[in-house]
Amino acid sequence: MRATVIHGPNDIRIEEVPDAAVQKPTDAVVRTVLACICGSDLWAYRGVAQRQPGQRIGHEFLGVVEAVGAEVRGFKPGDLVVAPFVWSDGVCEFCVEGLQTSCPHGGFWGTPGSDGGQGEAVRVPFADGTLVQLPQEAAGDQRLLTALLALSDVMATGHHAALGAGVGPGRTVAVVGDGAVGLCGVLAARRLGADRIISMGRHPDRTAIARTFGATDIVAERGEAAVEAVRELTGGVGAHAVLEAVGTEESMRTAISIARDGGSVGYVGVPHGGSAGVDIGQMFDRNVALRGGVAPARAYIPELLADILNGTIDPSPVFDAVVGLDGVPGGYKAMDERTALKVKITF
Amino acid sequence: MRATVIHGPNDIRIEEVPDAAVQKPTDAVVRTVLACICGSDLWAYRGVAQRQPGQRIGHEFLGVVEAVGAEVRGFKPGDLVVAPFVWSDGVCEFCVEGLQTSCPHGGFWGTPGSDGGQGEAVRVPFADGTLVQLPQEAAGDQRLLTALLALSDVMATGHHAALGAGVGPGRTVAVVGDGAVGLCGVLAARRLGADRIISMGRHPDRTAIARTFGATDIVAERGEAAVEAVRELTGGVGAHAVLEAVGTEESMRTAISIARDGGSVGYVGVPHGGSAGVDIGQMFDRNVALRGGVAPARAYIPELLADILNGTIDPSPVFDAVVGLDGVPGGYKAMDERTALKVKITF
Repeated sequence: MRATVIHGPNDIRIEEVPDAAVQKPTDAVVRTVLACICGSDLWAYRGVAQRQPGQRIGHEFLGVVEAVGAEVRGFKPGDLVVAPFVWSDGVCEFCVEGLQTSCPHGGFWGTPGSDGGQGEAVRVPFADGTLVQLPQEAAGDQRLLTALLALSDVMATGHHAALGAGVGPGRTVAVVGDGAVGLCGVLAARRLGADRIISMGRHPDRTAIARTFGATDIVAERGEAAVEAVRELTGGVGAHAVLEAVGTEESMRTAISIARDGGSVGYVGVPHGGSAGVDIGQMFDRNVALRGGVAPARAYIPELLADILNGTIDPSPVFDAVVGLDGVPGGYKAMDERTALKVKITF
Repeated sequence: MRATVIHGPNDIRIEEVPDAAVQKPTDAVVRTVLACICGSDLWAYRGVAQRQPGQRIGHEFLGVVEAVGAEVRGFKPGDLVVAPFVWSDGVCEFCVEGLQTSCPHGGFWGTPGSDGGQGEAVRVPFADGTLVQLPQEAAGDQRLLTALLALSDVMATGHHAALGAGVGPGRTVAVVGDGAVGLCGVLAARRLGADRIISMGRHPDRTAIARTFGATDIVAERGEAAVEAVRELTGGVGAHAVLEAVGTEESMRTAISIARDGGSVGYVGVPHGGSAGVDIGQMFDRNVALRGGVAPARAYIPELLADILNGTIDPSPVFDAVVGLDGVPGGYKAMDERTALKVKITF
């Protein structure tokens, strides 16, 4: 089969790799229907996050079950499914309580020895614990399928940020980051009943999506000017709930600075700035909490899926470009250069 | 009147200062009955936290109202009262929601222009917003008065740490720090229904108090060995709720490391290690939250007071030494050298 492989910084290739196959009785093989490129893949693309040369890449996909191992109970060939961005056994104490990202048997697509999501098929470990069934009718609806693809990561991650930030009715929310996760954070905040949602970004295409998703205010400034702008919008006190969806030192510093005293920063941007942006002295004096991390997408998919199906949310606008498998290297380039927000891959 | 004054590192003096007096119609003057020395006072004593030479010091006291301004409604001369470690107006949005430490009109005892708690009397701004009435009968009960003195800071701060850490029934709790706040954190965790409480400390007198307060396990190790010990006690996974009551880089690093995935660190140790101990990468991967800060003692005093009066908790054992006002400099020395846990001052 063919799959996306990373050989080094700026070196993404499409190559022949061994066919995905059932290796353990709890495995399934999923034939990919849609996949996509994540902002976090760019850390590897840019060489900031290390990868072994020749490692697979991609962690967001949905598709059709092609084969299942002897112990798989919940799925059969032909089922339409979505995978969260980590696999998990579904039965350990962490899985049971909804923190599947801490499953001791879990793993991340594309790590050595596993298939990546940006390939024609994927061997899925612990299929019963990992996959979520989608309605068969969705198969013929490209707009709906695209929205469902967001469940694999960005919609679930935006929701995790909103939960970490304590979003709820009556809350004023600020979202740092206008990438796909930040935009999904806006959508998640609206879904959770936020009164007012301040989206921070300057790219007109992205702020337009933020408005569609529920942003009531846009702040285009950065750094200290952004902090001032949010303060001004919030009567001088800041936002109850801040979603941090970037992961740099500056974005974390901004997020903490614009939180209202007693508020929370829900952070989901993969940290690439160390803890230098975490101003613990300011957090202490103002009782600002920091809560987030890698999103247990598997825990959130059922409720978010229901709300996509009933029309409450539609994250599909975050995908603003589409490529076939051969176009994936160009998709990375487009996202790296910010000419594309999020690239969908069709098979 | 006479009060404690700090002139520089290791230079605590008892001096004649202007009498405390009503200056504004919302003020009260409280004649001090009991006060004490706080672990956080030692940061100033050691020169780590800067003070102006001649500044007052001390922020924990209870006493008898001596005079009230014309607008004070809730108190009259003769009332027995306790003060939290900051004053607050009681009517702003932060006070109303229980975050009195963020009151825009609030302040900290001993800041320039205000009286400190370690003196014969204290001018209390916003008396109605700040003070809490104590039962008159307590005046004659030294053990009870001593327990009530802990409400001004350490018991409320331990409770804040426990809330920040998410302590509740069925939770395994670990407490980093065996000072008075850490010990009160043990007591607060037991009060909130924790199943198991691991107290981290090596000083036999302190671990004995920890046992009395509800600690089920003691870990004497430090650093990496402490992390291993807590992991071993918790089936390899760490504690759901970790109370950080020290404020150094090492203590924060330990606290985050011993938290179970998905758990919280409730931190109340005044940060003196910058953010270097905040391992954001580890927090992200394991979804460990950081929540705490300066405790809004005023918000907690009513419920904690009720539980001291009904015998549910008795924090008085954290006071293991007592001095008169002239003995205060020696009290600082004793606490700095760790020959005293917490020094009570009688007037």
